[in-house]
Amino acid sequence: MALIVQKFGGTSVGDIERIRNVANKVKKELGKGNKVAVVVSAMSGVTNQLVAYVKELSPLATAEAWAEYDQVVASGEQVTSGLLALCLCEMGIPARSYSGWQIPLKTDKAHGKARIESIDAQKMLAEINSGKVVVIAGFQGVSEDGRVSTLGRGGSDTSAVALAAALKADRCDIYTDVNGVYTTDPRIVPVARKLDKIAYEEMLEMASLGAKVLQTRSVEMAMNHSVIVQVLNSFNDEAGTLLVKEEDIMEQKRITGIAYSRDDARISLTEIANIPGMSAALFAPLAQAGINVDMIVQNVTEGGKSTDITFTVPKADVDMALKVVENLQGKLKYKSLHADKNVAKISVVGVGMRSHTGIAQTMFEALAEKNINISVISTSEIKISVLIGEEYTELAVRALHAAFELEKA
Amino acid sequence: MALIVQKFGGTSVGDIERIRNVANKVKKELGKGNKVAVVVSAMSGVTNQLVAYVKELSPLATAEAWAEYDQVVASGEQVTSGLLALCLCEMGIPARSYSGWQIPLKTDKAHGKARIESIDAQKMLAEINSGKVVVIAGFQGVSEDGRVSTLGRGGSDTSAVALAAALKADRCDIYTDVNGVYTTDPRIVPVARKLDKIAYEEMLEMASLGAKVLQTRSVEMAMNHSVIVQVLNSFNDEAGTLLVKEEDIMEQKRITGIAYSRDDARISLTEIANIPGMSAALFAPLAQAGINVDMIVQNVTEGGKSTDITFTVPKADVDMALKVVENLQGKLKYKSLHADKNVAKISVVGVGMRSHTGIAQTMFEALAEKNINISVISTSEIKISVLIGEEYTELAVRALHAAFELEKA
Repeated sequence: MALIVQKFGGTSVGDIERIRNVANKVKKELGKGNKVAVVVSAMSGVTNQLVAYVKELSPLATAEAWAEYDQVVASGEQVTSGLLALCLCEMGIPARSYSGWQIPLKTDKAHGKARIESIDAQKMLAEINSGKVVVIAGFQGVSEDGRVSTLGRGGSDTSAVALAAALKADRCDIYTDVNGVYTTDPRIVPVARKLDKIAYEEMLEMASLGAKVLQTRSVEMAMNHSVIVQVLNSFNDEAGTLLVKEEDIMEQKRITGIAYSRDDARISLTEIANIPGMSAALFAPLAQAGINVDMIVQNVTEGGKSTDITFTVPKADVDMALKVVENLQGKLKYKSLHADKNVAKISVVGVGMRSHTGIAQTMFEALAEKNINISVISTSEIKISVLIGEEYTELAVRALHAAFELEKA
Repeated sequence: MALIVQKFGGTSVGDIERIRNVANKVKKELGKGNKVAVVVSAMSGVTNQLVAYVKELSPLATAEAWAEYDQVVASGEQVTSGLLALCLCEMGIPARSYSGWQIPLKTDKAHGKARIESIDAQKMLAEINSGKVVVIAGFQGVSEDGRVSTLGRGGSDTSAVALAAALKADRCDIYTDVNGVYTTDPRIVPVARKLDKIAYEEMLEMASLGAKVLQTRSVEMAMNHSVIVQVLNSFNDEAGTLLVKEEDIMEQKRITGIAYSRDDARISLTEIANIPGMSAALFAPLAQAGINVDMIVQNVTEGGKSTDITFTVPKADVDMALKVVENLQGKLKYKSLHADKNVAKISVVGVGMRSHTGIAQTMFEALAEKNINISVISTSEIKISVLIGEEYTELAVRALHAAFELEKA
């Protein structure tokens, strides 16, 4: 008899009929002889409405404002937890709801993006072992001063994985509205293939590179606590994608998937005086301003006297980044500064890269063949990312998907 | 410096603009040098939507179902408390929200209609005395087993009065969408006059007899704890109606107000064997079935051999009541049984009745003059109620309002 944590997102609990559907998923899992804990999101649209109310009243510029934000937006998951528990009870399945504070799932005081500090699993485990299904409001906890806290948008995934770890669950099933994790976005590449398994590290790259199926933090947490996570569709009965340790994937392909993101902008500085400490002089002030610099490329110009630097920042931060860099003109004495928001980051990801060679070559050739110009390249052990013109996004994704033959199992 | 509890109902916090209006009411009270605790209802429509969700899933036939009902519906007040606290903070007024469990406001386990057991005022008082406005989610508490409980529809009034008692507030202002308590429903009698003061006992009768401005339980609680309650309009600045002790009303009028209710049905049994214990044989089973019998009239027929009994029950319970009575036929051997839902109860209310005579005569004459037939009469120290045909409701209310000259101050 296994203990399974099931997590259902907003579209899976979007109305009463869908909540009934979720209750049937729970029943099915129980029918296999398993014990079940369920984590639910707010009904789709609810959180957006609540956030809109809050934003009408406040720019959310203070810690106190974020505490009230949490008081407001955490209510959506509370509602769903009660409705699903009620639905299960009416089906003859003993169940009860839990808000974050009732567990308690304790967090720090960083309201709006709180980190989980501890989860008391005792009460829930007692109920589960007495034959009850516990239905937990995701996304929320209680801070050390007894106020409602939330884990940030998409935090219900993190709740689910953290609860699976605390309950020592055998598996954490993340139900969503897609069949699992694909080799790339099926809306762009119709022959994209659902992956049966993916390594945590790969999923982490895919998630942080724009694949929206799982929140990055939840993948990190699953990896750190070795929680076996399955991503699957609440609207059908197909097998999903299993997140596992690298060594649990028998045969590594060269590449597992292709991610893309339109969330970054490129900033270029030309002819900076090429002196020691120049990089620190540029990037330290950006870091102090809270701007997350991602890709960086530096070219020394002819003669070695000056250097050009290009880097990427989140689109939302580009104006702030430009201001920071403008203030550094006296120090860096660059010739020109420009920003380009019309860029996309395309990444090939796979733990197979560790043992296969020629990945970069295949990637660059495939892009060159379509006349797609690469402006920045960055690599890690298991991914290669390139920055290209935004209008080439789909073309590049399709070319790479074909070049690595990802449609083949 | 006084401590004022302000309570705002659903229409008063119906949208973000109205929440801003409420924040201004709070600011105004603070401007008078007073300290303020605020109790809020859910935004209008929200509770109805949540109750509709619940009812789609469950007939609410078990205690467990009611516990989940509370988990769901209590969320509405939580949202408003956060939004108002946020709005106050943005106006530069230090504030924080409280859900029932955060106070804690402890209740029994009768979910859906819980009774308040205790309120810990310490934490709130410390915040109030440090210069903060506390914004409390009305209608809710936490049961002894740590689950969310609610006090029943309209329970925010009760929350407000109970909190005013616990905080030893100087006054509890109940903001609503009418200017106060009127001599009768102004929609029926346009010249109905707003009362400056009303005695608790009178308000209790008015509330339980159909005047919807305050929840009966909250009036009871105010009376028991001598909380001075003011009913006033959140959409203007007019003085409201003050609920006070009888002795604090200087000049008693004969009658204070006229209430009406269409919530009852009449049940009549004819020619019951007139034997001792007959009333008990009839009313004990009704009480056991949880049916609240209100007015009762009994006539002994000619010769004294048999008796006719007429009584009223809530319209919602009339079918159940008929079943109970039908089962008693073997015992009571009545000749006929019929129910009439087309009835209304009209009541004249006033503590002045204790010292003035001729009230009943004025009442009956006024109704007779309009050819309105009275089928049942019941009286208490401070009210006389009559049951009449429902279609005469407005006519009767107008006739009585005129007969007692209630339009005159």
